[in-house]
Amino acid sequence: MSILIKNGRIITAADEYVADIFIEGETISAIGKNLSVQADTTIDATGKLVFPGGIDPHVHLDMPFMGTFSSDTHETGTRAALYGGTTTVIDFVLQKQGHSLKEALAEWNSRANGTTVGDYSFHMAVTDFNENTRAEIKEMVENEGITSFKTFMAYKGALMIDDSQMIGLMQEVKKQGGMVTVHATNGDVIDYLVAKHKSEGKLTPLYHYLSQPEVTESEASSRFADMTDYTGCPGYIVHMTCEGALNAVRNATRRNQKVFVETCIQYLILDASLYGDDFDGAKWVMSPPLREKKDQQTLWAGINQGLVQVVATDHCPFMWEQKLMGKDDFSKIPNGHPAIENRMELLYSEGVHKGKITLNKYVEVACTNPAKIFGMFPRKGTIAVGSDADIVVFDPNETHTLSAKTHHMNVDYSGYEGREVTGKVKTVLLRGKVAIDDDKCLVDRGYGQFIRRSKVSGKI
Amino acid sequence: MSILIKNGRIITAADEYVADIFIEGETISAIGKNLSVQADTTIDATGKLVFPGGIDPHVHLDMPFMGTFSSDTHETGTRAALYGGTTTVIDFVLQKQGHSLKEALAEWNSRANGTTVGDYSFHMAVTDFNENTRAEIKEMVENEGITSFKTFMAYKGALMIDDSQMIGLMQEVKKQGGMVTVHATNGDVIDYLVAKHKSEGKLTPLYHYLSQPEVTESEASSRFADMTDYTGCPGYIVHMTCEGALNAVRNATRRNQKVFVETCIQYLILDASLYGDDFDGAKWVMSPPLREKKDQQTLWAGINQGLVQVVATDHCPFMWEQKLMGKDDFSKIPNGHPAIENRMELLYSEGVHKGKITLNKYVEVACTNPAKIFGMFPRKGTIAVGSDADIVVFDPNETHTLSAKTHHMNVDYSGYEGREVTGKVKTVLLRGKVAIDDDKCLVDRGYGQFIRRSKVSGKI
Amino acid sequence: MSILIKNGRIITAADEYVADIFIEGETISAIGKNLSVQADTTIDATGKLVFPGGIDPHVHLDMPFMGTFSSDTHETGTRAALYGGTTTVIDFVLQKQGHSLKEALAEWNSRANGTTVGDYSFHMAVTDFNENTRAEIKEMVENEGITSFKTFMAYKGALMIDDSQMIGLMQEVKKQGGMVTVHATNGDVIDYLVAKHKSEGKLTPLYHYLSQPEVTESEASSRFADMTDYTGCPGYIVHMTCEGALNAVRNATRRNQKVFVETCIQYLILDASLYGDDFDGAKWVMSPPLREKKDQQTLWAGINQGLVQVVATDHCPFMWEQKLMGKDDFSKIPNGHPAIENRMELLYSEGVHKGKITLNKYVEVACTNPAKIFGMFPRKGTIAVGSDADIVVFDPNETHTLSAKTHHMNVDYSGYEGREVTGKVKTVLLRGKVAIDDDKCLVDRGYGQFIRRSKVSGKI
Amino acid sequence: MSILIKNGRIITAADEYVADIFIEGETISAIGKNLSVQADTTIDATGKLVFPGGIDPHVHLDMPFMGTFSSDTHETGTRAALYGGTTTVIDFVLQKQGHSLKEALAEWNSRANGTTVGDYSFHMAVTDFNENTRAEIKEMVENEGITSFKTFMAYKGALMIDDSQMIGLMQEVKKQGGMVTVHATNGDVIDYLVAKHKSEGKLTPLYHYLSQPEVTESEASSRFADMTDYTGCPGYIVHMTCEGALNAVRNATRRNQKVFVETCIQYLILDASLYGDDFDGAKWVMSPPLREKKDQQTLWAGINQGLVQVVATDHCPFMWEQKLMGKDDFSKIPNGHPAIENRMELLYSEGVHKGKITLNKYVEVACTNPAKIFGMFPRKGTIAVGSDADIVVFDPNETHTLSAKTHHMNVDYSGYEGREVTGKVKTVLLRGKVAIDDDKCLVDRGYGQFIRRSKVSGKI
Repeated sequence: MSILIKNGRIITAADEYVADIFIEGETISAIGKNLSVQADTTIDATGKLVFPGGIDPHVHLDMPFMGTFSSDTHETGTRAALYGGTTTVIDFVLQKQGHSLKEALAEWNSRANGTTVGDYSFHMAVTDFNENTRAEIKEMVENEGITSFKTFMAYKGALMIDDSQMIGLMQEVKKQGGMVTVHATNGDVIDYLVAKHKSEGKLTPLYHYLSQPEVTESEASSRFADMTDYTGCPGYIVHMTCEGALNAVRNATRRNQKVFVETCIQYLILDASLYGDDFDGAKWVMSPPLREKKDQQTLWAGINQGLVQVVATDHCPFMWEQKLMGKDDFSKIPNGHPAIENRMELLYSEGVHKGKITLNKYVEVACTNPAKIFGMFPRKGTIAVGSDADIVVFDPNETHTLSAKTHHMNVDYSGYEGREVTGKVKTVLLRGKVAIDDDKCLVDRGYGQFIRRSKVSGKI
Repeated sequence: MSILIKNGRIITAADEYVADIFIEGETISAIGKNLSVQADTTIDATGKLVFPGGIDPHVHLDMPFMGTFSSDTHETGTRAALYGGTTTVIDFVLQKQGHSLKEALAEWNSRANGTTVGDYSFHMAVTDFNENTRAEIKEMVENEGITSFKTFMAYKGALMIDDSQMIGLMQEVKKQGGMVTVHATNGDVIDYLVAKHKSEGKLTPLYHYLSQPEVTESEASSRFADMTDYTGCPGYIVHMTCEGALNAVRNATRRNQKVFVETCIQYLILDASLYGDDFDGAKWVMSPPLREKKDQQTLWAGINQGLVQVVATDHCPFMWEQKLMGKDDFSKIPNGHPAIENRMELLYSEGVHKGKITLNKYVEVACTNPAKIFGMFPRKGTIAVGSDADIVVFDPNETHTLSAKTHHMNVDYSGYEGREVTGKVKTVLLRGKVAIDDDKCLVDRGYGQFIRRSKVSGKI
Repeated sequence: MSILIKNGRIITAADEYVADIFIEGETISAIGKNLSVQADTTIDATGKLVFPGGIDPHVHLDMPFMGTFSSDTHETGTRAALYGGTTTVIDFVLQKQGHSLKEALAEWNSRANGTTVGDYSFHMAVTDFNENTRAEIKEMVENEGITSFKTFMAYKGALMIDDSQMIGLMQEVKKQGGMVTVHATNGDVIDYLVAKHKSEGKLTPLYHYLSQPEVTESEASSRFADMTDYTGCPGYIVHMTCEGALNAVRNATRRNQKVFVETCIQYLILDASLYGDDFDGAKWVMSPPLREKKDQQTLWAGINQGLVQVVATDHCPFMWEQKLMGKDDFSKIPNGHPAIENRMELLYSEGVHKGKITLNKYVEVACTNPAKIFGMFPRKGTIAVGSDADIVVFDPNETHTLSAKTHHMNVDYSGYEGREVTGKVKTVLLRGKVAIDDDKCLVDRGYGQFIRRSKVSGKI
Repeated sequence: MSILIKNGRIITAADEYVADIFIEGETISAIGKNLSVQADTTIDATGKLVFPGGIDPHVHLDMPFMGTFSSDTHETGTRAALYGGTTTVIDFVLQKQGHSLKEALAEWNSRANGTTVGDYSFHMAVTDFNENTRAEIKEMVENEGITSFKTFMAYKGALMIDDSQMIGLMQEVKKQGGMVTVHATNGDVIDYLVAKHKSEGKLTPLYHYLSQPEVTESEASSRFADMTDYTGCPGYIVHMTCEGALNAVRNATRRNQKVFVETCIQYLILDASLYGDDFDGAKWVMSPPLREKKDQQTLWAGINQGLVQVVATDHCPFMWEQKLMGKDDFSKIPNGHPAIENRMELLYSEGVHKGKITLNKYVEVACTNPAKIFGMFPRKGTIAVGSDADIVVFDPNETHTLSAKTHHMNVDYSGYEGREVTGKVKTVLLRGKVAIDDDKCLVDRGYGQFIRRSKVSGKI
């Protein structure tokens, strides 16, 4: 089985050139000008951009949270991702406090195994670090191919670990060649503000936003940077939203430190003015919440400065009916926002098309860096000989409009309803197979593979 | 005429994979596993690394300076560069105060044209910015393919422009799509200290070093960052040596600014302890001088932080007899140091081999970034279909010893005499031709081409 | 009853001049050249310095801690303070978790009331902030004259409050016109390191020091600054020891914030080289521990920059037998160090005599600022008409040697054994009465009064 | 001759209390409750504040500038100062380039000697530092009592020295026990922008403001801080206006540096919205220009942080007819603004009355710090026994309106026309004599004395 993609403008994190790509089986076997090869299938990419398949390292599929489950299963979520040009996702396994990592992994495997459409991997969220957990880290890294360990500095009593556990985890993870990632917000302060707002009868989605002021994120980001500096463990801050938090990382550069930073597409293009007087703001009730225009500018700058390495989604959709659980109390609104399908197109339209970032930078933050930082490179995240043929053929000029009516995510609203974007995913290959073409999905439930990941060094 | 490089481990700024490279004429036409092509020449690169040809964006060939000329001509300098795996250099044209840019370009063309062995381009050093000069900027950018304009904040009366001229130049260069680069040291303070040391009878090379304390560089770097922030002109600081200067750039990230930073190989691996009591230190009399161990750590960290984008040389060799002009007065020692031939091997040995940087980062800072920042990309700086076949086949394991006895630079001492390095350039291709093989140069004087450069955006 | 102090060089935080001071009853009634008054007692201060009585705002007397009590009672501690020129101290009342502030105050009153020799006040340490505690804040401020509330970011399970409680406390204290003070070290990280060292059999006093690295203090100081900035509550960091922590405060100046900083005399003059291989280091087992020379330089600079406002002691003495509780386990060594008697002389000798600070600065940080910051001004902390006649007559030239043999603190070792100091307290007045003269204490147990304090604004 | 000021609320930089002050001859001889003394004159200060006489360390009287002279002579200027509660001023002697310091001093003496009404001193502005000038520094310090040396980083060709001269001057001044002060704006950049605006026909006062953007001041402030750090010379930045410049000083605290900062009353309370479309903005054409609201906030914060030590005026008035010299060209408008009479009342009204600063801080920045920093303490700047009886009796409640019709400065407009202030100077004593009472001046031309100043240490 072979495919020839002819004459596209190939973009990688480093390169830009027009050539043909020849794919045999699951991987790329040659790239060249007018390759004289016989292919089973030929795709004409003339006038199109040809990217590596996107990697979204921050998604929550079928996740138990706040008494319900995020509405995209591993099947629907990875399928929607494919529609949007994202061929691999990293989902989060959540340890239950009092239980082992293995139990959690088994549970997630039971849901994802054999059901995903696109490729996937797992971060392991460590919510209860103790001597038993410590012993499991090595096993996860060496036997399970799970090399990143997510931590929460918020959600006390459910997900949060304290700084003592954090240091302990970092020292073990460093030893085993892994990375610690973090939801960096000060949960204690947030808990206080949530309780305060509730006690004052302030219950609309606006108060979700007002319960997580910038300081809760800048403080925790600074604290996490301090702890990674002390332990020497590679560290990665997920879903950064604001200037204060990035300044914590910028300050840390003065001590020669490198902390990886991920932002999400919504923080680059939406802002807190969406939290109005009514319940509509529930669509964007996520944690951290949307911020201000100055924060958007900071995050775009951070990308160009090389200090923000990844643009993800924190995809965690809930049906409107689920959101309505918090109709009378913002703290009961399931946190999350659907974006897994929209990331690649939105980032192109708002970033590349509007001149904020280069094409190389686009591929770097959406495809290559996630693969490198998390140990899937060079199999994933690039277009190179030997790599998996995960490829997006993209029309940079086609405009279209985002809407819940047309999207493939299992959620009945869109955070971007009616927004026109420039640039459209036309064809998507996953491991040498045409997965999406002309708005149709051509691969089945179960096609997706679990991607075991390598040890990481914290250098890319 | 075609060449096939078989089975090498190909490294680009983004990628790493084993494949064959097929070259037709001057450019790369295909990359693939076991390419079934007929080639005139086949190079077996099994077990070897295959890089893009290095780009050294900071060299001074045949340069009139301090009453003499740097001892490498465009011929000897670019030939030595090729021996060391550097296929393209950017030399500096120096405007004479009171004269036009065109006159200066003509003079440099007269020396370089038809004599270079490797490819080259020119930066234009603007030493006298006035209304006439302003009018020439556009011409340089559009007609001559010279898009970077070097400035000096030191060498008053010879090369230095004041801040008024700097702002004027930046505003014009920005308008024309160019970049301003800078020798960022406070010349006035240095002049004072030089005069003071001389008046006190302190005349050895050590006082060259003591006349350029860190503050002279950190101050000027900060000032340059301020001016580029104000004008919005893309800016690039050449030969950064120290923590104070990098901190100026780090501070500037807080206002969402991006300033490009170049360091040189010597600042990464040599330090000021080489300036002893005798005249031997003259070998490393360059400006800025060598610094301290803490500065080396800062610069390596800066590379990994993405805040230092380029490793160059500031190659500017002088024969020992020339150095002796300053035997009794350090201020008469011609400033400069030979490294054009050593950069790629030293950076590999000290950086990659010792685990300080990744292979991708190595190619990024030594090959790709110089090409991108200065508008030679994608023709130069990468291994990709359609790019010039400027390629280094490198043995990562071979050790050898640097020495003036064996180097090809036209200078009778080495700044690295007796230093053992791991990794050796084996074969070098320049535009599809084997230029170096097995320590022999196979291309002639005049083979080198002038590379016209594109406008730049300050984003890469 | 009246006293005339003749012809001394009077030093206040602002002034320096030679004059007479006339005291009637408890307060100063006139200051002038050659005052023609009739006094019951005349003290000739010719050639002497005349300071306000020192105020030590950080002492722990008769404090239950780690299963024992600090060895100075309110009687012995305030008497020793007087010997050393400190006329007023602020001791800490510690709320017991699960109990009220009032209960704690009653307990402390029962020990201090009628037993102290010098004047004293109380900080209230809030170790369990909840709705009951919140209701008591106002009462403390308005009825008890206790306007400062101490918090601990360390000692989990005993003294520590979490950030949720911290924010809640700050909001209430701000409303009531008080100030929040903090022991700013990250207790969770320290707990982890203590446990780790113990599990590795590292049990000497050196590991007390190694369990509280600089980052534990700089992190917590930064976090506290963030929280005071967010709440707008006046904040004060006690016993700061290091550059990292002061840099947190320096960074906060960029957002126009003011955080008060106290250091202690030992951090200015002792360093961590005292923690050797044996148990002798137990003398300086305190939290935070002694730091490095660079930290001393930073703290002295901070005083001159106006960013460190107070020099206190954190006096908390334990007999050697008590220290021996931790002979085989550093974590069982009672934390603390005797200095209440030595502060004024050591700060003079090391600060003023060695030219590090001016005489005005000396009085400012040792006498006036503590009074102003904590609401005892102008009654205490200065030499001015109407103020309490708390006065030290000091010989700036007399040298003497510190020793446990001669000191008056109830502790059988000295942290400064054998250290020679320049400058000696000769006579001390407390509220118009000669309390110390010629190394004899002339006032009795019970002479000391409780000083009710005013609301504070956070501006001085 | 003796005066008794009865029952006022006396405020110093440290103290606040109600007492009587007894003055004999020129100095204060006693302070006390109900002093029983016989005085020639008694002033009832019940209900009034009693401050030290203000010190304005930045005024330009009868100054040749831009082809004209500032309109207040030493007589009219110091008299107006007295009306406003300022008893001592420091004027600037300007060296002419190519001439000696002595010649300049002789010229200024010829104008000031015997004509001033209030007390005065001189800063020496060094505009041409060379070996001759160097030799004069010691003489100025030791023989003339001039210990502060003003420099200009702007006004090239007239007042500006380059960084070489700056370093040389600093090294000499440090050696002689003096201080270097600086007008810290980047003159070269300003010159460029002025020329640019003029070439574009932008000629109104608004373009004066736009020719001196914040960066010109923050850059030069940072550079000056760097140079004082390198040389170790005490440094003082005059008339700071903006956040960027104060941040330069805040950053410098991280290297343990102390740089003194002066702002002026107008920068605290006026902003750039006064530069409108017409020529009216000429009233506030001064250098640096007025800034933004955020800069006002920063400067008030800086005062409370202890990082801004002095509030002066840069008083440099010009008649409207003089301002009209620049009617068609902003660059010909004489730079300067009248405020010598208004400073003390405005700072009280806007600072103390509105709760931004305490009374102690008010006296500190307006009276005491200028005296201490510049070597006039304790003779000037405080109310203490032995100090000059320079005293202001101030009604904190009386409101009145500022106007050119009623002010005593020799200038026909007011920068504060119609502004109501709370607090009024009632009586002013200068060296034991009632100089102002009930809006009448009771001392004559020539009463003012030249104040010789001491060496300074850079510590206060």
